[in-house]
Order: sequence, then C-alpha cells, then structure tokens
Amino acid sequence: MAQIDHTHDPRLRSWVESANGHPDFPVQNLPLGVFSPAGAAPRGGVAIGDAILDLGALAATGLLEGEAREAAEAASGERLNAFLALGAGPRRSLRLRLSALLTGGRAEAEAVSPCLHPAADCSLHLPARIGDYTDFYVGIHHATNVGKLFRPDNPLLPNYKYVPIGYHGRASSIGLSGGAIRRPNGQARLPDAAEPGFGPSRRLDYELELGLWVGPGNAQGEPIPIADAASHIAGYCLLNDWSARDIQAWEYQPLGPFLAKNFASTISAWIVTPEALAPFRAGQPQRPAGDPAPLPYLLDAEDQRAGALDVEIEVLLLTDGLRAQGLPPHRLGLSNALNMYWTAAQMVAHHTSNGCNLQPGDLLGTGTISGPDAASCGSILEATLGGAEPVALASGEQRRFLEDGDEVIMRARARREAYAPIGFGECRARILPARPVPA
Amino acid sequence: MAQIDHTHDPRLRSWVESANGHPDFPVQNLPLGVFSPAGAAPRGGVAIGDAILDLGALAATGLLEGEAREAAEAASGERLNAFLALGAGPRRSLRLRLSALLTGGRAEAEAVSPCLHPAADCSLHLPARIGDYTDFYVGIHHATNVGKLFRPDNPLLPNYKYVPIGYHGRASSIGLSGGAIRRPNGQARLPDAAEPGFGPSRRLDYELELGLWVGPGNAQGEPIPIADAASHIAGYCLLNDWSARDIQAWEYQPLGPFLAKNFASTISAWIVTPEALAPFRAGQPQRPAGDPAPLPYLLDAEDQRAGALDVEIEVLLLTDGLRAQGLPPHRLGLSNALNMYWTAAQMVAHHTSNGCNLQPGDLLGTGTISGPDAASCGSILEATLGGAEPVALASGEQRRFLEDGDEVIMRARARREAYAPIGFGECRARILPARPVPA
Repeated sequence: MAQIDHTHDPRLRSWVESANGHPDFPVQNLPLGVFSPAGAAPRGGVAIGDAILDLGALAATGLLEGEAREAAEAASGERLNAFLALGAGPRRSLRLRLSALLTGGRAEAEAVSPCLHPAADCSLHLPARIGDYTDFYVGIHHATNVGKLFRPDNPLLPNYKYVPIGYHGRASSIGLSGGAIRRPNGQARLPDAAEPGFGPSRRLDYELELGLWVGPGNAQGEPIPIADAASHIAGYCLLNDWSARDIQAWEYQPLGPFLAKNFASTISAWIVTPEALAPFRAGQPQRPAGDPAPLPYLLDAEDQRAGALDVEIEVLLLTDGLRAQGLPPHRLGLSNALNMYWTAAQMVAHHTSNGCNLQPGDLLGTGTISGPDAASCGSILEATLGGAEPVALASGEQRRFLEDGDEVIMRARARREAYAPIGFGECRARILPARPVPA
Repeated sequence: MAQIDHTHDPRLRSWVESANGHPDFPVQNLPLGVFSPAGAAPRGGVAIGDAILDLGALAATGLLEGEAREAAEAASGERLNAFLALGAGPRRSLRLRLSALLTGGRAEAEAVSPCLHPAADCSLHLPARIGDYTDFYVGIHHATNVGKLFRPDNPLLPNYKYVPIGYHGRASSIGLSGGAIRRPNGQARLPDAAEPGFGPSRRLDYELELGLWVGPGNAQGEPIPIADAASHIAGYCLLNDWSARDIQAWEYQPLGPFLAKNFASTISAWIVTPEALAPFRAGQPQRPAGDPAPLPYLLDAEDQRAGALDVEIEVLLLTDGLRAQGLPPHRLGLSNALNMYWTAAQMVAHHTSNGCNLQPGDLLGTGTISGPDAASCGSILEATLGGAEPVALASGEQRRFLEDGDEVIMRARARREAYAPIGFGECRARILPARPVPA
C-alpha cells in the first residue's frame, strides 16, 4: 500500500513556478506520460505545472542513481510498458528523487531546467502499448440505474454483490484525449419494428470511468492474492467508454456488449500513481451494512481499512450552441470514485483468480461511476432516464443523447484537508458525424 | 477471393518425400508458422510434410524475387505480424514460388534442402503477437443447443439471424497446442445454494472452433465493406476456447463471459491460408430458405456464391484410463465448418461496421461449431446435455465434464474429390489440477 510521506507535504513549492497551485500537476502529483517535443520522437515524461520533464534526458544528466535511475531509463522510450513492469519500488524511488530535484534550490533548477519542455509545445501519446483492456462494472449506482431501464423488476442481478462483474473490451480502439471519435453505424431495432435497421447510432452516450494501469503482471495459472493485488496497479487515468445504447440493446444478449462499445474509448494522457493518491483513500468500508461479506479471496483487512479512492470525477458537455454563445461547458454529472463497490485490489484479485494473466500496460476500466442522485450520473442514459427527460443547456439546446459536434470533457480531482489537491488532466473528445452508409 | 490454380493440382509431388500423402502438410497446403530449430531463435517457416522450411534462410539464398521475397522476409522474424499485414498479393506470390521450388527437380532440391529442418527437432511458437482476440458465435447449432440448456423456452434469441454475435476475449492467455492448461478456480453457485462458493470448476469444457488470423487491418472509423472483407483474412487455425460452465452460469449476466473463458485458449500452430483452402468453399448458400436475408452491409454476391468453408473438424479425448489401456483417443464430436451461419467475410464486415479497427495478427474465433446431431457436438456441455447424460469411454470411464489429466485433441481436414486433402495440424492440450484455494 502506498504510504504518505514528505512528497505529499502541501507546503512543498517548486522552482517550476507554474506548478505551484496548478489544478492538476503540482509537485505533489508527478504523473507519467509519453510526449514528443515539436518534431521529435515520443519519450516518457512527467507533468509538472505547465511543463513536461523529459525522463531520459534527466537520466542522462547523472542526477539520478540506483532505482530512480532505473525507473527513469525504463520510462525513456516511446511506451512506458517497461516502466510499468518495474513496480512500486523503483516508481517510488523516482518520485522521491523528482520531488527533491523539483523542490530544490538554484543548483537543482539549473541542472534540471534543460530537461523541461513547455507542455503547450508538445504532443501527447498513449502512455503504453495496451495488451488487453478489461472493463469492470463496479459502479453500483450505475448498475442499479441501468438495470432499472433494461430490467425494471430486477435491476441489480443476484451476482452483483458477490462478483466484481467485468468483461473484455477492445484495446485497438483506445485513443488519447484531444482527438475526435466518429459516430458509429450499426444495427438497431426500433421499439415497434419487426426487423432491425442499419445506420448511425441515435443513442450515443459517454461513460465516466477511471482507468487502472496494470504494473507488474502474473504468470498464467498463478493468481494474484488479494493481499498483493494493490501492488500490481501502477496508476490511474480517466476513461470515457463511449457507448451506442441502441446498438447495445439489440446486440448484447447473450454475450455482452461488442460493437456498442468497441468503436472508440478515450483516456486521459497521464498516469497518476498510487503514491500520488496515497492521501486520498477514504479509510472507510464502502460496503453498506447488511451486504454479504466479500468471499475470502476478495477480502484483505488492509485493503478494507484503506478503503476506496476519494477522487471527484466530473463530466461536462460543450456543444456548438454553447461554443457559439461563448458559454462554458455544461456539467452533466459530478461523482466520486467512492461510489465504486469494489476496490482496485479486488478487481485485480478477481481477474486473476482463475489464473488469467495480466501484463504490464493492460488497462482495467472501473465501469461507469455514477453517484446516487440525478446530478451525479456518469452517463446520459441515466441523466435523461433513457432519453425520456432531456437535459436543458444554457444555450437553449436540449440533449437526450449526444449529437455530432458535441465535445465530452472529463476531469478528476483529489482533495482532502491538509493536502495539496491534485488532478488527472482532461479526458476530452469531440463527436464527428457517422460515415455514410453504402447503398 | 482466393482462386484455384496449379498449386492445388492433386498430382503435384514434392522431393520432400514425407509431404506426399501427408495427412496435414502436403505440398498443396504450405501453411506458415513460427518455429525454432533446437537452441536457435524463433523464426517464420512453412510446414512441408515432416519438415519445416526456414523462410528467412530461403530468402537469403536468392531463390526468391519480388513479392515472394518480400513476403518471406516479412515472415523471417519471431512474429508473423509483418507478413500478415502484407495481404493476399505477396502471400500468393510466395505460395506460387514455394510450390515451384518444392516440386522442382534436383537443382531446386539441392538449393532448398539446407533451409529445411526436421519438424521433430523444432519447437513451435505462437505465430503472431495477438493484439485483440474476438470470439464470435456463428455456430447456429451450438447457439441453439446451449440456448436450450440456459433458456428452454427461448433457445435462439431474436437477434441471432441478423447479428453475427461476437464478444471480446482475452489475448494474453492464448497458448499454443502441446501445452497444458490449469483448471480454473472460480465463483459458482450450486443449484440449491443461497450463496456462491469459490473453488475448482466442476464443469470444465472445451469448445471446438476455428480461429481466423487477421491480415491487413483498417483505420479506426473506416469500416471494411463486405466486398473487401475476405481479403482481410490471412488464414485459419484450430481454436479450443476452454470454458468453465459453472463459473459462466453465475457470472455471465449482464455483460457476458469473463473468467469462465479467459484462463486459457489453445490454438494450433499453423496458419492455413485462404489460398490453400480455395478448393474447399462449399459453393452454396448456408442460410436456410425462409431465414431473413442478411442486411445489405453483410451481403455480397460473390461471398454468398463462394459459400462456407467445407472443412471437417473433430474433437477427441484422451484420458488416463485410455492411455493406461493403450486405447486410442475417443472421438467426442465430428463437425464441419459448413455449420457456420455467417461467413468469415461477414464476421469482418460486421466487426468493422462501426469503425472498430482490426490489426494484423488479431485473432477472430468462430465460436463453437457444432453440427445438428449428438455425434457432431463441439462442446461436452452439448454432448452430455449439460452433464445429464455422461459420455461412455472404451476404458470403462465416463465423462460428464473434463477431468484432470484429460487431454483434448482437435483436428481439421479439408477434402474434396479431385483435390489433395489438407489438414491443420493438431490443437492439443492437457488439463492440470487446479491450484489449491488459499484458506
């Protein structure tokens, strides 16, 4: 379990002035990603204020030693998989050293400054080669809300409180924040139709999720015990699991979502480490009294004591109308990772309990993390009760589902008294019109 | 569409004597895989009789030119992804040249022989890095049989004859024929129990499938039209989609199979190309009269005319009892790829119809290909009617589901009058006992 130490001291200030008070990337955060300075090759870096620190260049200065140097060198290439594989020890050593260097005096500033690039001049890339992508369903309010729409009499299925429900998603179509996604065509059957039709999805939706980056993996056939499971998570990001609800409703029986989801998923660029998030564990059991206890393979005293992540997550919508009138994005939902029914460690222990092998750079989605009320929904399906009650925007527009040109923006922020708040950076993408359907 | 040409002439004989009359790998086949001669690095090769031809070594002889040389060089490394990406033109050029060289005279034999290795002295490896693995459900008899067990009143769901149903599987746990798999532990709820338990699966099953190797991919957002879809399949293999039925029954609602499947899948080592299989298309529509016509995005006249693959597939069981008494494997089912309700081209067109991007080396499973009767079941769940009617073996043993030590063997053979039969090589793996459940 990541510990709180002096790198979390809210009084720490960096000589990178933009880091001090930065909403996402103060010196207490230090998330990793892959960037390229204008015209140059992709390489690993750390976000600090409005700048990005080149880890390979830093390693070459000789300012790092031992595990910290090993970690920086593993993160110097165009994918962070080798870094993710190293695990918590080297990751923490690098954090300690980066914190010292970035909060140091003139000597450190002079030595490290040449390794900094203005973020505005850089491109960001997927931080790792994603081998497999699994999406869970641990947002119990989402499961209940959606269950009510699909199965009014039976919203939460009997397995929900025993099984961290998950399914495999598509790794190839995961893209980075800042891009655009194309509205999918697909089969759907209108409520009164005898036969399905094929065309642009009419019920395009977002899903507000966290993504978990897998660090060290496990050998096939060798489960990860719950007590070790947290150490296999190398960090977190935001994840928009775009969903076409009309395609989903028609295709999902009996084998689950497929084309309704695999056209695109969007993630934020930075890997926020468990070390950065150490102060933001809620320290309370998230399982309501009266619920069945987790089976022993999912039960670890320390994991239960540490509890869920207390991270605010929100989703906003920017439309052509809002843009034209100079209005800000409309907040569609504000939720919190506390609404996860299962912890990250439980997701890892369950996933590998049958011997399934995880690999460094695999991505685990939490599933949509809705809160208990209308203002905290993580999908528009929930916010509009299946499209029945449109969302009204300040521009005079309405939305039952997403329209072409809409831009969905997700943000996450961890804050707690006596600690510096940290953020995840944005997860943002805009919707392009569907391709014409061939005659 | 792959054409029939002189490489399919049944009179062709090779100077590699073991190829002539070889049940799997006569000179009319020429499948590709990755092998390593004793102690050497993995590299691409072609199976010919009891030997393997080293493609990189062959390219280095100067005996190949143009596209054939390009293809051999792309296939010379430890993964065939670059070769798969090349598509049908270079693949066919290589086939034509290999056929000429391997059926040539003394000069060709002398020049090529140094590139041959006895297969018995080589190790085989996964032929490609599998980016994403998708499993379809196109065996209509399987869907009906399983539907009857899970939903007696409603065996075939309303979407089945419109949607090539598929879902995402786990790429990391796909292993090669010849290995062992470990019985999974997992959650299941016994019929009369109030709560689930956790332990070794009691209903372990195989699934008899074909695997389709994706060749050239498509850009995200750019569907592959049905008329082009066949050209994106680079070859076929056997696939055993191991399944834990008790875990599956408890976990699969609402998002589909997960831990019931992702502990292991086993594939045969050789990529049998569409060119090798050109003579074995059935030339008849596989869709019974009265069924709804495929929607236009799934309908291509040439694909319908060419029809389904006519490939016999069988699954056999070898138990400790059969082994001890020197008895041969017991045939559990003999089926045929003609039982696929959708063609490979329809699977590709559907998969990409929403803009989902396929990549070279992705693997598509067909789903279990059962025939219409008890002798042609592709899973033991079907053969024993959910475990109710055990299979009796010549050893005196019975099986309701698979037991530890059981070895499941799959074979495929294409045969048609006036053509040389070709095979896929075995897909075989043995079951190890489950890991102990921690107290």
